[in-house]
Amino acid sequence: MADISTTLPLSRASVLAAHDLIKPHIHRTPVLTNTTLSGLASTPRSPDDLKGTRFEGRRPAKPKIRLWFKCENLQRIGAFKVRGAFHALGRLMMEEGWVDGGGKERGVVTHSSGNHAQALALAARESSIKAHIVMPTISVPQKIAATKGYGATVYFSGSTSVEREAMADKVISETGARLVPPYDHPDIMLGQGTMGIELQEQVAELQSRLDPYAAPSKKGLDAIVAPCGGGGMLSGVALSAEGTGVKVFGAEPSYEGADDGKRGYETGERVAAVSSLTVADGLRTPVGEWPWKVIYEKRLVSGMYSVTEEEIKKAMRLVLERMKVVVEPSACVGLAVALFDEDFREMVEREAGDRGWDLGIVFSGGNVGADAIGRLFSE
Amino acid sequence: MADISTTLPLSRASVLAAHDLIKPHIHRTPVLTNTTLSGLASTPRSPDDLKGTRFEGRRPAKPKIRLWFKCENLQRIGAFKVRGAFHALGRLMMEEGWVDGGGKERGVVTHSSGNHAQALALAARESSIKAHIVMPTISVPQKIAATKGYGATVYFSGSTSVEREAMADKVISETGARLVPPYDHPDIMLGQGTMGIELQEQVAELQSRLDPYAAPSKKGLDAIVAPCGGGGMLSGVALSAEGTGVKVFGAEPSYEGADDGKRGYETGERVAAVSSLTVADGLRTPVGEWPWKVIYEKRLVSGMYSVTEEEIKKAMRLVLERMKVVVEPSACVGLAVALFDEDFREMVEREAGDRGWDLGIVFSGGNVGADAIGRLFSE
Repeated sequence: MADISTTLPLSRASVLAAHDLIKPHIHRTPVLTNTTLSGLASTPRSPDDLKGTRFEGRRPAKPKIRLWFKCENLQRIGAFKVRGAFHALGRLMMEEGWVDGGGKERGVVTHSSGNHAQALALAARESSIKAHIVMPTISVPQKIAATKGYGATVYFSGSTSVEREAMADKVISETGARLVPPYDHPDIMLGQGTMGIELQEQVAELQSRLDPYAAPSKKGLDAIVAPCGGGGMLSGVALSAEGTGVKVFGAEPSYEGADDGKRGYETGERVAAVSSLTVADGLRTPVGEWPWKVIYEKRLVSGMYSVTEEEIKKAMRLVLERMKVVVEPSACVGLAVALFDEDFREMVEREAGDRGWDLGIVFSGGNVGADAIGRLFSE
Repeated sequence: MADISTTLPLSRASVLAAHDLIKPHIHRTPVLTNTTLSGLASTPRSPDDLKGTRFEGRRPAKPKIRLWFKCENLQRIGAFKVRGAFHALGRLMMEEGWVDGGGKERGVVTHSSGNHAQALALAARESSIKAHIVMPTISVPQKIAATKGYGATVYFSGSTSVEREAMADKVISETGARLVPPYDHPDIMLGQGTMGIELQEQVAELQSRLDPYAAPSKKGLDAIVAPCGGGGMLSGVALSAEGTGVKVFGAEPSYEGADDGKRGYETGERVAAVSSLTVADGLRTPVGEWPWKVIYEKRLVSGMYSVTEEEIKKAMRLVLERMKVVVEPSACVGLAVALFDEDFREMVEREAGDRGWDLGIVFSGGNVGADAIGRLFSE
């Protein structure tokens, strides 16, 4: 990773600069809408739907929500992570002495359950840099195969972040490679945030096409819900919305304490360790120190919400069956919040009133094997 | 169905006229490309890949194939069938006396394993016509629910076409409704063929964007592979390509004799009955008499190919995992032919030579439940 003294300040302008740097290497992924899902989000759930959930007995909320899906499942390597990886390497190449002084020859190293692994492997290959990747043995086989396919050397470790980091340290001491962490660095955050810039632009463009005579003040998003694992992407998206009036919310799985971001946000104290095997396998990590500064200390995230495993699977089923696009479980927590979290829905009803909200939902990735879909949904 | 004396002649011009009639009611679905899949189609399979298949011991073919996917899985109701349904009802409304004379009040009836059922239900609702739909009891539950959701009355029957037709006859005698068959009628064929017109136009547009200076003669498709069940769509697509130089091929499952079109094409004798439970549930029907005239008698289809259940599932897995779009098994037979049928691949190698072919693949529908994906791919 580039030395921290060389990173740009954590601001919207820096996200725009990151976008200029990585644009040639990434897809401007499409933003989709879906009448059925927006209709569902705008229909109060029945008291029966709430039975047996944490919202049993509550008056169902009546928000109006128009959903806009940013399809990073259609991004290169099937996930948003290439944005951070291309940006991190781009900044590293600009660090004095790294290319000329021989640092580049020793390569880069990271640890990741999968998407960051593939992202760094691809970005490194396109810059002729050697990549060493530490992956938990329980990673999805397709992700391991893809990482190797991009020419990276793969090392295996246990699945907690402590085990992964220990193995990464070992590889660094043996190879002299530079660490590119999956989320806890400003260069990564600013790279991931570029997706938030595109989402804001694309929604405004699509709205203009639908209603060319609407006042400019009526256009654009009201809010974005993004998944939160280590918080690199959530914090980047929050930076991309800084000063625009677009609110940003984080979504997490609640299973086995994977809602560390929400718990930390509520107590004011970052939770530093998580050990969850939530189905949302990209969101099993605790929020990092750098993302925490943006999410909590700068208050650029307006709230954190968490959903159950069942809610994540219900959202994923709807995306597969109604939108006909493939998303991985981690990508579905934002939609699950919009459809099933009565706290969130009540807040939208209260804040948005009759006009309703244009709500951006981040589909963060689509790397799920057909057999994993099988295990999730076969009776 | 409109009386046969009122239908347009079976020609490309009639498909264009059908397109004008139904355009306001349907989506112009996107055409996608995929570097990985085109690369796979253009890579000779290894002798090991061919082991245990019907091609064991053959020299693997070396075709060059650029794939263009027409995404009718993103069509209204999730399948191309709305095209035929809207066209059939549009022509019926033009039949003298049907609207004024009271025919319209008695409604329409059909039998279908699912996609035509939903299509007719939707088209009827948008024209304020009552729809009676006969469905096999073993239809995918989501398709039954969706058909009812469009306000149709659903009747259940056995799964063979004989059983389905018997129940449809019963409904007709009780209600006086007009039959709109799923494929065996010129109005249906011309409606489905509109998809072929769009595919040809869209590929030429996309090629122009990629290479604005290419000579017009270098643009457009060389061929299209379309699934063949009753043959309504395949024959319509063949008509859409009439006189254009674009070749059209049919693709079928070989399981339990569902390759009736191929067998008929080779012997010169239409196979009138099929009883197959192929995983490609939309392709379990025999080719109808009207489609047969176009496919075989007029020779507008240049060849028929069939693939195994395993090949269909392998193609479906690639689409889910690499393209991140959801397609039903029936939609995957065309891609399976392009990737796995050495007879087809050898023919492309021979006909296309070094230049290769731009090959349109019809993704006919995406109506598959998450649990069905589960059953297909869980170990």
